[in-house]
Amino acid sequence: MKYKLGLIGCGTVGQGLLEILDKKGDRLKKDFGFEAKVVAITDKLKGTLMVPAGIDNKKVLALLAQGKTLGDYRPGKKPIEMDPLDVITACGADIIAELTYTNIKTGEPATSYIKKALQAGKHVVTSNKGPAALHFRELQDLARKKKVYFRFEGTVMSGTPVFTLFENGFAGNTVREIKGILNGTTNFILSKMEQDNMEYGDALALAQKLGYAEADPTADVEGFDALAKVVILSNVILGGNIKPSDIKPEGISSITRPMVLNAKQEGCRYKLIAQTKRDGAEIIASVAPQKLLLSDPLAGIMGTQNALTFDLDLLGKVTIQGPGAGKLETGDSILQDMLAIHRDLR
Amino acid sequence: MKYKLGLIGCGTVGQGLLEILDKKGDRLKKDFGFEAKVVAITDKLKGTLMVPAGIDNKKVLALLAQGKTLGDYRPGKKPIEMDPLDVITACGADIIAELTYTNIKTGEPATSYIKKALQAGKHVVTSNKGPAALHFRELQDLARKKKVYFRFEGTVMSGTPVFTLFENGFAGNTVREIKGILNGTTNFILSKMEQDNMEYGDALALAQKLGYAEADPTADVEGFDALAKVVILSNVILGGNIKPSDIKPEGISSITRPMVLNAKQEGCRYKLIAQTKRDGAEIIASVAPQKLLLSDPLAGIMGTQNALTFDLDLLGKVTIQGPGAGKLETGDSILQDMLAIHRDLR
Repeated sequence: MKYKLGLIGCGTVGQGLLEILDKKGDRLKKDFGFEAKVVAITDKLKGTLMVPAGIDNKKVLALLAQGKTLGDYRPGKKPIEMDPLDVITACGADIIAELTYTNIKTGEPATSYIKKALQAGKHVVTSNKGPAALHFRELQDLARKKKVYFRFEGTVMSGTPVFTLFENGFAGNTVREIKGILNGTTNFILSKMEQDNMEYGDALALAQKLGYAEADPTADVEGFDALAKVVILSNVILGGNIKPSDIKPEGISSITRPMVLNAKQEGCRYKLIAQTKRDGAEIIASVAPQKLLLSDPLAGIMGTQNALTFDLDLLGKVTIQGPGAGKLETGDSILQDMLAIHRDLR
Repeated sequence: MKYKLGLIGCGTVGQGLLEILDKKGDRLKKDFGFEAKVVAITDKLKGTLMVPAGIDNKKVLALLAQGKTLGDYRPGKKPIEMDPLDVITACGADIIAELTYTNIKTGEPATSYIKKALQAGKHVVTSNKGPAALHFRELQDLARKKKVYFRFEGTVMSGTPVFTLFENGFAGNTVREIKGILNGTTNFILSKMEQDNMEYGDALALAQKLGYAEADPTADVEGFDALAKVVILSNVILGGNIKPSDIKPEGISSITRPMVLNAKQEGCRYKLIAQTKRDGAEIIASVAPQKLLLSDPLAGIMGTQNALTFDLDLLGKVTIQGPGAGKLETGDSILQDMLAIHRDLR
């Protein structure tokens, strides 16, 4: 089946996706009968490109690598000036990949883009945590009404399968609890504090230097990023209906080197743990540092890796560990979402 | 969709499956539109039962729990004496669950049962390692020719998703290597040798006492069980065509307590590692004890747990950890295989 794809946002994830489609296109066609032709790309900083016959992904990647814009794709032609909301409806795409930046407070402008696309009967795939954390029910209902898909594998643990794993591997199981390390930045900092005996501030500075933490690290270190993810898991997997503002996260900024070293001597390790479970009609979710026994599967997760333990009534505990961020890793989440749609439709 | 299911073999796994179908039937119907009516059960020791209108799973479980046979299901009626090969064709099932004992040398009688079922146009689901390790290509080809499914999630890590994870979560990724702890018995023994300072023989005796190891523990401790699994992974996931006899496994019986304790002092841990990768047209697979650094995700897997690390070109390393055996755990693998078929057919 051939799909026409529109990219709203073409930063790291968008370029990762273009790279994957360029590299894997032939194989995806041969192995799964899946073909995705990019017909539009729009990005606040890089401009807008619409090519109904299909964009040359390699050419776009080369332009962007040289610091050029999408307007340079067709030299001499006037750059397209169009609101992304209009690109969504004008470009003729079947699938919209919403890849703009995350705003966890408002979910905008991503939520508006997603609604517009679903309203227009287009499937939406996204790795943006804002819309899924704030408006999952509404967007899911709209998608169902319009008989299209709304998928967001990359919102939790990038391309490491979480929702796909749950849907396909745990069907029929009751999830008793979900517990995980869902933020790579804080896990890196805690790992460095223990393994290299660093102070919190020095470990944070190193994380910033390596590009794992942002200049303003609040969203990571105070637990807001993990919070958004645990809200998504609560609503999607446990059938809850909670909002990020329902939970007050506790971050790692209060964890000191002596605390980390004392824990080590006790055979324990601090981890920023996001967890959620059902208690009757209620969801009990939290994000807070916990001192885990080293025998806990989550205690061994070091560096920027993420992991999630599902406690299931038939299988007991199953843990998946993998990357939580990254260009190709998150780009792959968008591909996996499109392939999941393709498997259902073909 | 309603499926008619025939069980060939009704030991631990078969009874686990019946328990799951009994407990989860309503939910599977409601959530997935999946209904499975058991129309036949045949077991070498427990007799044969065929009920076209559907067997009462709860009643069968109660009988078997009391040590009775399937012949006692209809008191007064003459017990059915029929070869399982004839039950397969006579019972009218759409899906055959092949749940007899594993014979890793010959794959029989399971392979004959599976062939008969596929020939007759029935889907086959199994947790039996013999047929999948010895005859995967032939059985897969036959299934394709007959336009039915041959699935075997439970052959590796019981119901912990491995093949489902690969198919749905890693599509389009190239698998560079697969490496895992695939035998719970040996992992339990090695764990006990380190954690409780036990000799190999004592740890083995404890595993036997707890029912993790058989009276003749050769298949586990000499690596033949892990070998069968790594052959299945090589052929199914890496597209190889190898046989168990192509690899000489090395087990754990040569691992001594001093070796385990020395490794611990070096910050390492012995694990029985099954691994496989492609080198051009060739598959390089092995089963042998390895001294892993404690930072290796597989080093932290203790007790009877299993784990498998996929090294993927897009995602890097993703590890799944979960149960490797058990009544409900393996019963669930059969359910997952049936649901995977159902998802494709509906």
